[in-house]
Amino acid sequence: MSGEHETAYERLKERLATIGDLRSTTSLLFWDQQTYMPTGGVAGRAEQMATLSRLSHEMLTGAETERLLDTAGELDPSSEEGALIRRARRDYERATKLPSSLVAEISRVTAVAEPAWVRAREESDWSLFASHLDKVLYLEREAAEHLGYDDHPYDALLDAYEPGARKARLEPMFEELKRGVVPLIRAVAERTAEHSRDGEDRAAPLHGEFGETEQEKFGRAVISAFGYDWERGRQDRSVHPFCISPGGADDVRITTRFDGGWLAPALFGTMHEAGHALYTQGVDSDYARTPLDGGTSMGVHESQSRLWENLVGRSRPFWSHYYPKLQEVFPEALKGVDSEVFYRAINVLEPSEIRVEADEVTYNLHILLRFELEVALIEGTLSVTDLPAAWNAGMEEYLGVTPKNDASGVLQDIHWADGLFGYFPTYTIGNVLSVQLFDEAVRAHAGIPEQIREGEFSVLLGWLRENVHRHGSRYYPDELIERATGRPLETAPYLSYLNNKFGELYDLG
Amino acid sequence: MSGEHETAYERLKERLATIGDLRSTTSLLFWDQQTYMPTGGVAGRAEQMATLSRLSHEMLTGAETERLLDTAGELDPSSEEGALIRRARRDYERATKLPSSLVAEISRVTAVAEPAWVRAREESDWSLFASHLDKVLYLEREAAEHLGYDDHPYDALLDAYEPGARKARLEPMFEELKRGVVPLIRAVAERTAEHSRDGEDRAAPLHGEFGETEQEKFGRAVISAFGYDWERGRQDRSVHPFCISPGGADDVRITTRFDGGWLAPALFGTMHEAGHALYTQGVDSDYARTPLDGGTSMGVHESQSRLWENLVGRSRPFWSHYYPKLQEVFPEALKGVDSEVFYRAINVLEPSEIRVEADEVTYNLHILLRFELEVALIEGTLSVTDLPAAWNAGMEEYLGVTPKNDASGVLQDIHWADGLFGYFPTYTIGNVLSVQLFDEAVRAHAGIPEQIREGEFSVLLGWLRENVHRHGSRYYPDELIERATGRPLETAPYLSYLNNKFGELYDLG
Repeated sequence: MSGEHETAYERLKERLATIGDLRSTTSLLFWDQQTYMPTGGVAGRAEQMATLSRLSHEMLTGAETERLLDTAGELDPSSEEGALIRRARRDYERATKLPSSLVAEISRVTAVAEPAWVRAREESDWSLFASHLDKVLYLEREAAEHLGYDDHPYDALLDAYEPGARKARLEPMFEELKRGVVPLIRAVAERTAEHSRDGEDRAAPLHGEFGETEQEKFGRAVISAFGYDWERGRQDRSVHPFCISPGGADDVRITTRFDGGWLAPALFGTMHEAGHALYTQGVDSDYARTPLDGGTSMGVHESQSRLWENLVGRSRPFWSHYYPKLQEVFPEALKGVDSEVFYRAINVLEPSEIRVEADEVTYNLHILLRFELEVALIEGTLSVTDLPAAWNAGMEEYLGVTPKNDASGVLQDIHWADGLFGYFPTYTIGNVLSVQLFDEAVRAHAGIPEQIREGEFSVLLGWLRENVHRHGSRYYPDELIERATGRPLETAPYLSYLNNKFGELYDLG
Repeated sequence: MSGEHETAYERLKERLATIGDLRSTTSLLFWDQQTYMPTGGVAGRAEQMATLSRLSHEMLTGAETERLLDTAGELDPSSEEGALIRRARRDYERATKLPSSLVAEISRVTAVAEPAWVRAREESDWSLFASHLDKVLYLEREAAEHLGYDDHPYDALLDAYEPGARKARLEPMFEELKRGVVPLIRAVAERTAEHSRDGEDRAAPLHGEFGETEQEKFGRAVISAFGYDWERGRQDRSVHPFCISPGGADDVRITTRFDGGWLAPALFGTMHEAGHALYTQGVDSDYARTPLDGGTSMGVHESQSRLWENLVGRSRPFWSHYYPKLQEVFPEALKGVDSEVFYRAINVLEPSEIRVEADEVTYNLHILLRFELEVALIEGTLSVTDLPAAWNAGMEEYLGVTPKNDASGVLQDIHWADGLFGYFPTYTIGNVLSVQLFDEAVRAHAGIPEQIREGEFSVLLGWLRENVHRHGSRYYPDELIERATGRPLETAPYLSYLNNKFGELYDLG
């Protein structure tokens, strides 16, 4: 870079570092609110969050940012400087395209819609929420128009969570998944029907008395073995588990919800959040306080949480090492449950109403349904009034399940109340990608499954660090996937993984 | 106010609310660092703190602030609006008088001086710290010149912590205290010498096995009875106890340090920090996010912590209610220790080297020494080189104690390393004021001691809320004291309290 460009680049980095500090501080405000803040602090905390968001938005959209971006110029995005400028420009453009009056209006409307959704779900009464969703939807469509798109307004929203993702490319992905998993689900259902006549309940071993302290200790041991760095993180309790970074890669915290009568939520929740945390902790320290810090997209983030939760944490090799340890911790609750029975318990495939409780296979059909519905809502081919019926029809079609009421159906997720249209598909992108990455890691290091069987994860983590984590947001998802696996995102490895795993689990031959 | 003034006033309040949000958020960053932040977060946290401080400083000193202050105009400071503008103008003027290069330089130099002081104290080696203190002192004197003063440069520094306080008014206060307590200390020392020949150790009952969980529970019960509101606060652990408000009056947190072998630190530390917290929680909720929120000065703040710690927490009435409860909690450790022996144990008067371990009486001589030394350092009549000798001479003169080394002497406090010249006197102002306020509360409600004897504190708290807490920073300390007690700060009540209490405790007749 020449002198003028270089000076602009350095000043741009400084400005972005200030914005980064405001954002990571906002993360601390959020973390504190969910963990330790006294209840009386709610109103004041909302003011602090609003103030910090406003200041970072003002700083990002300020004329000085554009001037510095223009002076620094466009550099080859394959260089770190070029990638930083490209990401900064993307953030700047998305932020400036939305009029601040619209941003404020979305914030006001969702602030009212969220508690309305809570009440509507409590009372399972769609009418309490419908008018709020109408308003949110109206504003989201307006936002899409401001943000702009080539093909479909949904793309403008999707792009916020998954840079580069497009509706037209998700549709074949979902179609392939549907074609791949529906027969599997059907075959398992038939097999299950035979057994359930014998009164078998495969998931029973996960229910019983599981002391929370012991659960916590076991979970900590597992994620320590994964490579979670406690010098740069901590674990606390919260109603809804999450992973957050109030200080770049050097301060990445997770939270967990414990249920003393059910082993699954904390066990797999801890591994899931640790998966997110390993990604964030693994970002190159040179990217601290720059737009390259943190994960590149929600989908890639989810691939990391799912990889550790499912590919590792619900696998036979993992439990061949850890099940004896788990039995030592819970000798009473797991008495007479052998390793194979436990492995089947954590891998029950069964269509159900609730997304967050779904198994690995049916989960993606929950997402497919939401994807189709929100696309239709955004393009206006489905009205909010008709949404509950469309939901129930979709559940029946894809999963053979009719929700017993709207609370267990169309009202179950918070996302739409918060205006998060375009977010859901990233869950499935994460699932699909988790297998593509895991397969590639095993292709590079055939010993990984054996290492996992010994409770060792360093080779797997090393491969992920090298090919995914350290890059932070330097590459967009498509680039990262291509670099890491030599090809674009594809469903074949994922479908083959599901069919092998569950075919074997359910003796489908 | 006319339309133009009113608009300016409202816009000023908005601007100050943003600054308030940045400051309270900085408090959360600090709280988190002292309690839960993983060690890896240190460097990033320093950046966040620097960024938020810079942004709030820029916003406070911006031309827009001056314009709004000027347009809003000066109002009668006895009105709330007038008081707000007066306080805002004071903050603005102090902030603008210091060149930002000097602020940055002080921040840089103290950031290096503090770890140097830590090492110097560890090795008890003055030479490791002297050159750093020289630099700090040079910058503090420069700051005093920028801030301006009528009489003495020390006043400019003092005023930061105690608005309106002046060296010339502190000198007679300290002189009266010296004249009042030196004879008391001498008389007690003679009496103690007689008894110590019998091997008596009055403080012995406080040492033993005191489980930390039980200590915590007892402390929580005590401050709950004081009126500490747990819906708007919480208690955590930290190496150095403190009280902080990351959310105005609605989120006021305290921290405690526990010692399983010594009852005193957590017991009195909890009451002390709760005293600060009661002040902050008691501020009028209308002052939230304005410059009137929070205590009016360090001295008045200290009067509240000392009042609850000493006037209540080291009193006979308090322990006549609580000692049986304490004995129930620690039946082993307090076996055979009767209420009177315990009361004597928590009120041992004995000159010693270390300020933070000093009793109620000798404490103020520690402060007097620091006050005299820092005045001399600031005016240049004492050099850093000669400081250790001057310290030791002063300790000998005022307390009859010669520090065994510099670590236990001139190097014991962090304040000077941090550039906090002018802070120490607020501790003694707090002590003196605590008695003046307590006496006035009892004059208004003669039943207060009897209430305390029953473990009830509502009348005392009510008087403090009404006369001190709710006003926040609306009045300057002098005004507040005059309003609350009908006269300026005076030493007579304090000296009479000390002489009565310790005269009786040591049978001085």
